[in-house]
Amino acid sequence: MDEFRLIAAIKKILTQGPAAKDETRDPRVEIGIGDDAALLNVPAGKIVATTDTLVQGVHFRLDWARPREIGAKAVAVNVSDLAAMGCSPLAALLSYELPCEVDDRTVLAITKGVAQAGFLYDLPVVGGNITSTSGPLAITIAALGVPSSARVLTRGGALVGDVVMVSGHLGAATLGRLALERGIGAKFSELVKAYRRPVARVSLGCAMAADGRVHSVIDISDGILADLGHILDASGVGANLDSSAILLPPKALRAASLLGVDALECALMGGDDYELLAVVSEKAVGDWIKAGMRPLGKITKRKGMRLDGKSIKPTGWNHRS
Amino acid sequence: MDEFRLIAAIKKILTQGPAAKDETRDPRVEIGIGDDAALLNVPAGKIVATTDTLVQGVHFRLDWARPREIGAKAVAVNVSDLAAMGCSPLAALLSYELPCEVDDRTVLAITKGVAQAGFLYDLPVVGGNITSTSGPLAITIAALGVPSSARVLTRGGALVGDVVMVSGHLGAATLGRLALERGIGAKFSELVKAYRRPVARVSLGCAMAADGRVHSVIDISDGILADLGHILDASGVGANLDSSAILLPPKALRAASLLGVDALECALMGGDDYELLAVVSEKAVGDWIKAGMRPLGKITKRKGMRLDGKSIKPTGWNHRS
Repeated sequence: MDEFRLIAAIKKILTQGPAAKDETRDPRVEIGIGDDAALLNVPAGKIVATTDTLVQGVHFRLDWARPREIGAKAVAVNVSDLAAMGCSPLAALLSYELPCEVDDRTVLAITKGVAQAGFLYDLPVVGGNITSTSGPLAITIAALGVPSSARVLTRGGALVGDVVMVSGHLGAATLGRLALERGIGAKFSELVKAYRRPVARVSLGCAMAADGRVHSVIDISDGILADLGHILDASGVGANLDSSAILLPPKALRAASLLGVDALECALMGGDDYELLAVVSEKAVGDWIKAGMRPLGKITKRKGMRLDGKSIKPTGWNHRS
Repeated sequence: MDEFRLIAAIKKILTQGPAAKDETRDPRVEIGIGDDAALLNVPAGKIVATTDTLVQGVHFRLDWARPREIGAKAVAVNVSDLAAMGCSPLAALLSYELPCEVDDRTVLAITKGVAQAGFLYDLPVVGGNITSTSGPLAITIAALGVPSSARVLTRGGALVGDVVMVSGHLGAATLGRLALERGIGAKFSELVKAYRRPVARVSLGCAMAADGRVHSVIDISDGILADLGHILDASGVGANLDSSAILLPPKALRAASLLGVDALECALMGGDDYELLAVVSEKAVGDWIKAGMRPLGKITKRKGMRLDGKSIKPTGWNHRS
């Protein structure tokens, strides 16, 4: 298929497919795919903008996930950033770098995943770009969102005495990826699913933005140590985490044992979880536990990060080390 | 340099360098680089969004242009899309895919070019992404803009009897690229400059949006035939171009002759010009000639594209043929 035909097929999937967020019926989208730029209505007067790229061989492998899952994940990791700001999705741009050896069917299947996730998160894809490359397949999404409350959630704002909380379990995605690497993914379908199909916590992020007692939020993409490190840097504080609070489900412990890796290390350093990490005023902890968040430790005046009082480095996945 | 240090160095260039559009003093930018997403003020209630990727070996070569020129071009090609909508720049996201063999100095020099172009176009870079890749260096920019008038310019709207006009000369960038390919770039510095340093026509695009007699506009990235083809498709009309109107400066004709290529073909099919192609009501042509635009032909009821009455195919640069 030549470039313009492929664009037409992609546009059809994104705007007319059964799972498409039909931009022509979306009051936020005045002009969608097909002009020099998309035209969007932003009545609230404020937007947030973020972007993330998934590169074949770095962030995904076509033999480790189905093309649709890869497309949906490209959306989810971007929406997760919107969620971490307490914002709801507005619109997205989708860019492909396509090596000649990737067939059109794969590209269209990835696009179906993008469309399905766009439908799920109420995120119309309104434009994008296609180019050839001599390198690996790459998917870049730029996502725009609108604040759901009067304030947005940032990495700054953590106060001494606040409690560090997290949604869901950590390390599952990393263990799932390791299981796929070792060829034993079939044994750990839940962990593999956590790796292949992350879910962006949009309603949780928006609920946290509405609660002034939530002081700081980030999404966990590079591992909790790296991402908590960003909060501590931005807020000028430190933290002490309690290793016994970092519970892992029995499946994860069994997988770690079989894979010969440290389950706690996977939970702390593994990326790809896309849970939200929040710093919450002590008096709000009870309410957020009821909402499914779990406390992991405390914000301290003393800078740096400690696990059970012992200093640890905030080292997660680093793309240029 | 590890990823986080490189991000810090990039951030410094984009926000504190001598040519930086300092986002901290820009009332449009509430939160810039350094959080999960950027937060922008959009008082007008409408935005446009576009994205473009430059891939090493496809769109640029490090031995054909300086890193700063490549960074500036990545901005210009995106701003050109905003200009073609009649919009002024609001903010941009910058994403790098970095092969390990590209040194940090090159990345930072490209970033300086991004910062300089951001300053020139009043376009603060408010966020982005970095990832490693096993493939070539790639630069993706997503640019947001705001309409400068009550309406935006689109690819639709061309009417039978309207005049096709273009800003500037066509084909210069293609001839410059060919001269570099053949190793005789030094002989044709103006043409090479057209290839290396395209200028986005923001004020022209905004002026055209304010004139209701301008019916349709696109920027020329893939060659005038391909890009006029998009206008014709979107507007449901045809066009007849006058080859004698497609003037080339003497330097371009000499270069084409020396390179053994057809100058007219370069003007029609060559991409990378980033001039604006406009379809204008006949009564407005005089005014737009005074503004520096040149008439190239007429919009016809008969569909398809003709050159001096003979049918031609709208084939330009195609990334997947």
